[in-house]
Amino acid sequence: MSKVTPKILTGFMELTPNEQLVFDKIKSIIASTYESFGFVKLDTPVLELSQVLLAKAGGETEKQIYRFNKGDTDLCMRFDLTVPLARYVAQRQNDITFPFRRYQIAKVYRGERPQKGRFREFYQADIDIIGSEKLSVLYDAEVPAIMYNVLRKLGLNRFHIYMNNRKVLKGFYKYLGLEEQSADILRIIDKADKIGMDNVKLCLEEMTLPADKIEKILSFSAIEGDKASVLEKLNALNIAEPDFQEGLTELQTVATAMEKAGIQETHYKIDLKITRGLDYYTGTVYETFLDDYRSWGSICSGGRYDNLAEFYTDRKLPGIGMSIGLTRFFDLLRDAGMLNFDAQTPAQVLVIPMDTDTTGYALEIAETLRKADLKVMTYLNDAKFKNKMVYANKINVPYVLILGTDEMQNQVVTVKDMLSGTQESISADAIAEHLKEAFAKQAEQAQFVIKQ
Amino acid sequence: MSKVTPKILTGFMELTPNEQLVFDKIKSIIASTYESFGFVKLDTPVLELSQVLLAKAGGETEKQIYRFNKGDTDLCMRFDLTVPLARYVAQRQNDITFPFRRYQIAKVYRGERPQKGRFREFYQADIDIIGSEKLSVLYDAEVPAIMYNVLRKLGLNRFHIYMNNRKVLKGFYKYLGLEEQSADILRIIDKADKIGMDNVKLCLEEMTLPADKIEKILSFSAIEGDKASVLEKLNALNIAEPDFQEGLTELQTVATAMEKAGIQETHYKIDLKITRGLDYYTGTVYETFLDDYRSWGSICSGGRYDNLAEFYTDRKLPGIGMSIGLTRFFDLLRDAGMLNFDAQTPAQVLVIPMDTDTTGYALEIAETLRKADLKVMTYLNDAKFKNKMVYANKINVPYVLILGTDEMQNQVVTVKDMLSGTQESISADAIAEHLKEAFAKQAEQAQFVIKQ
Repeated sequence: MSKVTPKILTGFMELTPNEQLVFDKIKSIIASTYESFGFVKLDTPVLELSQVLLAKAGGETEKQIYRFNKGDTDLCMRFDLTVPLARYVAQRQNDITFPFRRYQIAKVYRGERPQKGRFREFYQADIDIIGSEKLSVLYDAEVPAIMYNVLRKLGLNRFHIYMNNRKVLKGFYKYLGLEEQSADILRIIDKADKIGMDNVKLCLEEMTLPADKIEKILSFSAIEGDKASVLEKLNALNIAEPDFQEGLTELQTVATAMEKAGIQETHYKIDLKITRGLDYYTGTVYETFLDDYRSWGSICSGGRYDNLAEFYTDRKLPGIGMSIGLTRFFDLLRDAGMLNFDAQTPAQVLVIPMDTDTTGYALEIAETLRKADLKVMTYLNDAKFKNKMVYANKINVPYVLILGTDEMQNQVVTVKDMLSGTQESISADAIAEHLKEAFAKQAEQAQFVIKQ
Repeated sequence: MSKVTPKILTGFMELTPNEQLVFDKIKSIIASTYESFGFVKLDTPVLELSQVLLAKAGGETEKQIYRFNKGDTDLCMRFDLTVPLARYVAQRQNDITFPFRRYQIAKVYRGERPQKGRFREFYQADIDIIGSEKLSVLYDAEVPAIMYNVLRKLGLNRFHIYMNNRKVLKGFYKYLGLEEQSADILRIIDKADKIGMDNVKLCLEEMTLPADKIEKILSFSAIEGDKASVLEKLNALNIAEPDFQEGLTELQTVATAMEKAGIQETHYKIDLKITRGLDYYTGTVYETFLDDYRSWGSICSGGRYDNLAEFYTDRKLPGIGMSIGLTRFFDLLRDAGMLNFDAQTPAQVLVIPMDTDTTGYALEIAETLRKADLKVMTYLNDAKFKNKMVYANKINVPYVLILGTDEMQNQVVTVKDMLSGTQESISADAIAEHLKEAFAKQAEQAQFVIKQ
């Protein structure tokens, strides 16, 4: 029979079993942290009606969408998790208790030209808090605190969450009389990290803005320092524009509450160059960079929006959300050698019967250990002992139990510690407790998933 | 602005937050049980190349597939998890350690005509053990033991795993000289549960089989009793056909090992009417029925196959697998009133600051409790106290912490037990320990997810 070559599409990430174990640990830390803040998971369909999912989309996004017909129905695969959230909340607004906290860690689809770091199928890990009519700005402090917790629990320490407020920007450009040009100006400043401030200046000059205003823009964008000094410098500008003042108050409230919410001041900064796209966000915005990998861009971003679902409902649904681009983040960590795949194993214990006479005993012992919450694999193939141990080595299991006729008759097991190479005989009654103690010790020394 | 009606496609299941919490508990029990047997998760792409995914498919399945072009590429959405597994194992056969144990709990897609109990997007929860060249028949006992554990952990007790062996059937029909007709005969017997044995007889008569052979088929299919007596009756048939004898030996080995693997004999039966489709399975086959809901059909099925990936590789890859149709199972349990959605809550504790002065204190207390592994939500909106308590009631949270200026000044919290309605004042230092003890007590009385 002629064979079909087994392969997957380019731009799709598929992992080895060991990589998958690490990926899942990261995903599970993100999910359990989100849950610890009272977020409930949503699981929306991958396929939706195009008329619903594309109510807002347009331009670049729409071109990338996997869209097709099945029968008479015009379908597309979700390209983000925000539009499905908007649809969900609008659809079920009468059954939902607001503020509504949801998380969703799921794959989204974009038929982009594949290139390094761009995937056509990728996980996003989103949290959003949605209010009905109003939502306290204090939530703008809690949401980055959640992301701070996620990153710390993954083992990262050298990172900063940068925040800004779109109202401050809006007020500043109104004050300069550049409200109409502000979208173009912000798009240039958004690139400051990549192109440098000198090139930002050149770009602004190309826009034929007056030199004094360019200077003001550049010195405004360059304001930096710790939280208190940035706020002080912004106050000192004496800009009376209501948007500016409102944004400044919010910035102050949020920055103060962030500390209360547990983010060390060493880990966040106000940065007036953070703009986060153009039309969706209306207040606080965030980006997060690893200090040693600025070139990765933001690994976790988000912000405040006034109206989640205006395409579906008249009800005003303000919200605040952040998102981790998990697939891309994992890919970058892997390439940077920050993940340890070799230490992975699918089981804590491998139970090996010496021959067919002891397979029943092996199955019984394995079941006893599982009742004590251990992860236990059996090796039931008829093979030479040496090959069984080769298997144990390949799957990197820390303990092997060897069960021969002698062991069965005496109701003991031979335990081999694969790291030290030592082995000892333990009574069948005591083996679960023995192994649990060994693993409890190891758990105390447990290492973070990511090595920084 | 004119609004788009927010809705999803028919045939797609989307849950309320409370339903989602229950669904996830079930999914998580399945996953952790699979993992306790040393299975590693795979996460294959939802989209694959049609030429790869459809190497084998045809007929009914192919008509249901979501297939489309993007650019020059002919794509389809996966319609099961077995074909992607075959592709994965064939593609990575040199990097995989055999026997390879993988699980995958993921959505698959079939554009079927939507009807009650049929979904177009649904979760399957699959386990498979794949050998290279050979795989001991003892694994055929371990795999149903895993499913037995899953069902027991979900809270089910009134169910049976029914098993059979395709070699026994093949040998029996060879012995009757009906090998050619056996596929048609088995298709009729497969329906015995729905149409009854009298109708099976009528169908066999319509095939114009000789009356004496029909009698033999019916009395063979009707063999029942406990494991020992069924095996004895099969032995007593004295059928020398090698397939029959080989199958009978396997049936004996597997049935004996199933008990060792921890399945109570009250929970499995040999049933010669179980056939499991026609061409894929080659040895042991299983179906699982809830005793009180036979009409649901099998909730968990599978079996042994000789060759997982023959469309992709010459290497012989025998395997054994079972699968739970999770979405359909959940839907049936929900309709039968066996799931309790009312008791769900997104958090264990809701922290309510009385006014803006105490929001900082609330954020700090919440963070302290999370460090003690509690799930803690804050309520930060400016609202009347009554409305805050309405929120607490709606989300069904068991404990509310009320933090006013007095509490902050004295570094205490007022804890309200929402079930009993009592409240007490506890020192901020002691509150984490106090709540952990309360939840530890509740955990001892924890109930199963499914009420039978």
